[in-house]
Amino acid sequence: MAKYPEKFTGFGVLNHEEWNHPKKVEFDPKPWGDHEIDIQIETCGVCGSDVHCAHGSWGETYSPIIVGHEIVGKVLKVGSQVENIKVGDRVGVGAQCSSCGECDLCQNGNEQYCVSCAWTYAGNIGEWNTQGGYASHIRVLDRFAFVIPEKLESKYASPLLCGGLTVYSPLVRNGCGPGKKVAISGLGGLGHQAVMIAKALGAHVTVISRSDSKKEDSFKMGADQYIATNEKGWAAKHAGEFNLILNCGSSLSGIDMQSMLAVLTSADGRFASISAPPITEMCSFSPFSLMGKSISQHALGNAKEMRDLLQLCADKDIKPWIEEIPISEQGTHEALTRADNGDVRYRFVLTDFEKEFKDAY
Amino acid sequence: MAKYPEKFTGFGVLNHEEWNHPKKVEFDPKPWGDHEIDIQIETCGVCGSDVHCAHGSWGETYSPIIVGHEIVGKVLKVGSQVENIKVGDRVGVGAQCSSCGECDLCQNGNEQYCVSCAWTYAGNIGEWNTQGGYASHIRVLDRFAFVIPEKLESKYASPLLCGGLTVYSPLVRNGCGPGKKVAISGLGGLGHQAVMIAKALGAHVTVISRSDSKKEDSFKMGADQYIATNEKGWAAKHAGEFNLILNCGSSLSGIDMQSMLAVLTSADGRFASISAPPITEMCSFSPFSLMGKSISQHALGNAKEMRDLLQLCADKDIKPWIEEIPISEQGTHEALTRADNGDVRYRFVLTDFEKEFKDAY
Repeated sequence: MAKYPEKFTGFGVLNHEEWNHPKKVEFDPKPWGDHEIDIQIETCGVCGSDVHCAHGSWGETYSPIIVGHEIVGKVLKVGSQVENIKVGDRVGVGAQCSSCGECDLCQNGNEQYCVSCAWTYAGNIGEWNTQGGYASHIRVLDRFAFVIPEKLESKYASPLLCGGLTVYSPLVRNGCGPGKKVAISGLGGLGHQAVMIAKALGAHVTVISRSDSKKEDSFKMGADQYIATNEKGWAAKHAGEFNLILNCGSSLSGIDMQSMLAVLTSADGRFASISAPPITEMCSFSPFSLMGKSISQHALGNAKEMRDLLQLCADKDIKPWIEEIPISEQGTHEALTRADNGDVRYRFVLTDFEKEFKDAY
Repeated sequence: MAKYPEKFTGFGVLNHEEWNHPKKVEFDPKPWGDHEIDIQIETCGVCGSDVHCAHGSWGETYSPIIVGHEIVGKVLKVGSQVENIKVGDRVGVGAQCSSCGECDLCQNGNEQYCVSCAWTYAGNIGEWNTQGGYASHIRVLDRFAFVIPEKLESKYASPLLCGGLTVYSPLVRNGCGPGKKVAISGLGGLGHQAVMIAKALGAHVTVISRSDSKKEDSFKMGADQYIATNEKGWAAKHAGEFNLILNCGSSLSGIDMQSMLAVLTSADGRFASISAPPITEMCSFSPFSLMGKSISQHALGNAKEMRDLLQLCADKDIKPWIEEIPISEQGTHEALTRADNGDVRYRFVLTDFEKEFKDAY
């Protein structure tokens, strides 16, 4: 049986100057409660948010801060009121670890917009600073832990927990399905999952990218069509074609919004964005070009969408394209550095936790 | 029995310099067909579009051009294939008079976005230039004529046919109804109808206006709350309050979009605009402020929405606030001039057609 440590261990960023040199640190878990569960971590995906947070580009945080919010692991212990999760289950934790549970948003499947929402790292629950998944263990509220279907390997489940959910939710909320033409703009860690998920949902899927460099990969992922925006006249050629564009690029400022609106269908074409750009970024459009269309911005998804996504990926054998890196000071350094440079096709997953944390397990 | 003239008579704008001096002219009706109906006009509302078109601010048109697209009148004659309209019926015609009828948009209740859509004036059907309702008669396709419920007086039905439909469609398409908090921004010819219609649909209704000058009228129309944006801190006070804002202002450039987004609900707040601004106008927003929200732009509504709206207004005794002006060269001059100056609370309706056109009837 696994050991049950007093303290957890992780790789924490000590200050923003050394953002890509996490150090091995011990930390106190969140105070125990009736709805808490303790998880021994097996894998953790590396998200663009990890880099943003380590950099400090979304503001100051506490030190050390342990990032990572695509966490899969085994349940070691459950609180007395936990009902649907038991010791030994394999569960996932995404980017959100708490919400009030009582407001209209929480009661209606929008807990990710709750004003008391806490993120899995860089968040606060009472006086406790949340710590993420580049670590031996995590203690989390049962509402924010999700049983992973048996068919899904942990390393493939990890990227779904933040990146996958972040694309799945706006896809389903904007009607992605059979008979719909859906374009995914920006083929990175999130976009490549969006291609596979939109296809699994039954849509006709087009990748919109700057150049032809990701064309071959796109078709391997299941895309039906590929558009390179460095080809002149692309918008005129595809005018009025797409019911939905999901913008998975890292910003809106680099987007040619007039062209994006031009290729949407006339009556209910939707441009949905999940980019989390710098807080000061502005975006412009012509109201006339928006006629019969909409622009929206989305964050994460809800618990039901998380469960539906995991089941969909198990049923349809969807596997994010990953590169595995064993967790360690060197491994987390490499993952953060290369993710910051965009040097990944298409998602890093930290693995080999049982080797690195053998003293803690 | 009414006479049946070879030529129709109307008040046409001869050139944009004399935009507010329409002259009495005769014109050839559209060629007859199996689905055509001829209407002897009783009333016609005066829409902001009439002014835009007369001005030429949406581009050059033919001469003379007879504007007006809030038309109510009696059916004089029907084509051999017309099924649901008979001679003697009282019908209304709005801003659209044709579409292909066969494309996906037409087949799915979005005929107003059909690429072959023709407007009631400043449009073309084949080689024929469409002429609107500041006239003795109009000949129109049966699909674009709507029987007016008996309880609705013609002069109150007129403003519903363009203005009313233009607000009704985005209200229902964006979920206006019981339990929803809806704000109407801009209380003019369209906005004042939106207040009454949103209220009739069961929503909690707030008027957002620049100053307190329209507060008393708003409450008389049924508004539950009034916000003047020249009061400091209004957006902070109402943060996250509205499920939907319907922007009925004449442009988006004068809108404080960040504040508008701030007062929308967090998970599905919608800013829907029906303004038809100059084609070159741009609008800016911060993607971060749009998180969980959307911005959309709407044009008119479909045939079903038109019928539903007319029935709703008959059932709920909704009457647009109108000022009647007898039609004549002087009357159309006054209506266009005062509408251009915003000197109307809240909609002009041209009346007394039977006096002016007695030779033609």
